[in-house]
Amino acid sequence: MTQIGFVGLGRMGGNMVARIKRDSNHEVVAYDRDADTVQRIAAATGARAADSLEDLVGQLDAPRMVWIMVPAGAPTQGTVDELADLLEPGDMIIDGGNSKWTDDRERASALSERDIDYADVGVSGGVWGLQVGYCMMVGGPEAAVRRLAPILDVLAPETTAASRGTLGDHGWGHFGPSGAGHYVKMVHNGVEYGLMQAYAEGFDLFDKCDFELDNAKIAHLWNQGSVVRSWLCELAALAFEQEGNTLAGLSGYTADSGEGRWTIEDAMDKDVPTPVITASLHARFYSRGNGDFTHRMLAALRAQFGGHATKKSADG
Amino acid sequence: MTQIGFVGLGRMGGNMVARIKRDSNHEVVAYDRDADTVQRIAAATGARAADSLEDLVGQLDAPRMVWIMVPAGAPTQGTVDELADLLEPGDMIIDGGNSKWTDDRERASALSERDIDYADVGVSGGVWGLQVGYCMMVGGPEAAVRRLAPILDVLAPETTAASRGTLGDHGWGHFGPSGAGHYVKMVHNGVEYGLMQAYAEGFDLFDKCDFELDNAKIAHLWNQGSVVRSWLCELAALAFEQEGNTLAGLSGYTADSGEGRWTIEDAMDKDVPTPVITASLHARFYSRGNGDFTHRMLAALRAQFGGHATKKSADG
Repeated sequence: MTQIGFVGLGRMGGNMVARIKRDSNHEVVAYDRDADTVQRIAAATGARAADSLEDLVGQLDAPRMVWIMVPAGAPTQGTVDELADLLEPGDMIIDGGNSKWTDDRERASALSERDIDYADVGVSGGVWGLQVGYCMMVGGPEAAVRRLAPILDVLAPETTAASRGTLGDHGWGHFGPSGAGHYVKMVHNGVEYGLMQAYAEGFDLFDKCDFELDNAKIAHLWNQGSVVRSWLCELAALAFEQEGNTLAGLSGYTADSGEGRWTIEDAMDKDVPTPVITASLHARFYSRGNGDFTHRMLAALRAQFGGHATKKSADG
Repeated sequence: MTQIGFVGLGRMGGNMVARIKRDSNHEVVAYDRDADTVQRIAAATGARAADSLEDLVGQLDAPRMVWIMVPAGAPTQGTVDELADLLEPGDMIIDGGNSKWTDDRERASALSERDIDYADVGVSGGVWGLQVGYCMMVGGPEAAVRRLAPILDVLAPETTAASRGTLGDHGWGHFGPSGAGHYVKMVHNGVEYGLMQAYAEGFDLFDKCDFELDNAKIAHLWNQGSVVRSWLCELAALAFEQEGNTLAGLSGYTADSGEGRWTIEDAMDKDVPTPVITASLHARFYSRGNGDFTHRMLAALRAQFGGHATKKSADG
């Protein structure tokens, strides 16, 4: 039996607590700054409720482990800072959010001065993780990761025989010192942008081509033994089934949560050509209506050198 | 029991004949221009051997079906032309190669004047198809495809429950008139270029990053519940296991068999932005050492405006 505190009970954190409580006898003390969420998750999962970070730390036995699952950036850093003041030497903080790997390095170094361990865990799997398990990329000191292993084991998917040789008997991976987990997860997300954009371009062609094609049928078929079969292709089939062949009800505005940018930043730092990941991020910028000035400037320049007609904008 | 002729017994055609003979009681008459290959495949699979196209046609009962599985372009067109002169009205030709969809339209139209049916089948699955089954994207007249269905059924993978609603009870898809099968397969390959490039860029970063990462371990882990899990990611894990973490023994020269170009051609025809598929094809051009003149010109221009040092080439 392992004991862990969980801070942040949103879609990811809440489901992770649920999976731990459903599939193990580990003890979870759960906190979220929204008190109703704490009560709901505690009632649904059997986790113990905490009404503050201080209460959460008080309910855990030393040496403590506290898993933070809140948005990257200021919310995560604020939680780390608060916890650092509440925890004792020998305790451990785990950041399961989407922090930048360079922040992990700084945090680990700052916390080590207080003898608090730190592990960074990149988590993939989204809302399907409760059912399938979470793919977890872990960075941090060997001993700290070993201590966390029982929690990782229950959160991870069942390993397939093929993977067991490389991963051992667990479905998560420890990739190196602090930052390595979030680094591997960051690149995972950069790759994800490229994969999504590749499928999207292909289906955009199907939408415009000379044939009347059934996109859901294509996505389903591609998952039957084709080279492009994948989980994203399965999700594409679901999307076309639910939203229709033209996705007409959806806005194309596509956000990004930062990992694509960081991937490209590191690619520039290491002089690695990443045309596809870069183009995928830029496609998302275009999807938000950015590039509009570029387009007006292209029109203006064409008009200048060739006298090509320009269209006046509706409000111009 | 259905009877079919097979022309072209290479890696794809030979395995397809083997799968048909292994998993059904269909009759196959097999021909390849290499006589040893014909004898080998006939002995291994139980298909009947033919020593010429004329012999193959003679061994089939009318109305005949002949499946062509030879390289796209001149070899396929030559085989279609020869067969057209040997076949009778009511017979049918199936092109299972990687023909361009616009060629299918012309062929179907020419053959219809002789009352010979034509179906185009885009086949994905590579050397794994014998075991897994072939993902087949089919174009052609409804009646012709219905006649071919028993053969497609045995070549296709077992359908999954999720796909059955859209695809019916078979693991192949009929997408429209002549050309539709190869069109969907062409875009499949364009998407495949993008997916491959996205993974390749990600692992290139792992190769250059601040951490010592185990690429096989990452590829295996990504297949445990992550968003980027896919068959290509499984193949990446195999590749790193077999070739080592740096792939040092491989040449990076990457060929293309045309479908990526045709995808981009049609994207230009339909004004569909395809930055990722386009960048992926160009990455393959770079992989062959192309772009070298561009690079010398960039160096020359930098020298001109800024007096930047240029390197003399070894042979310059």
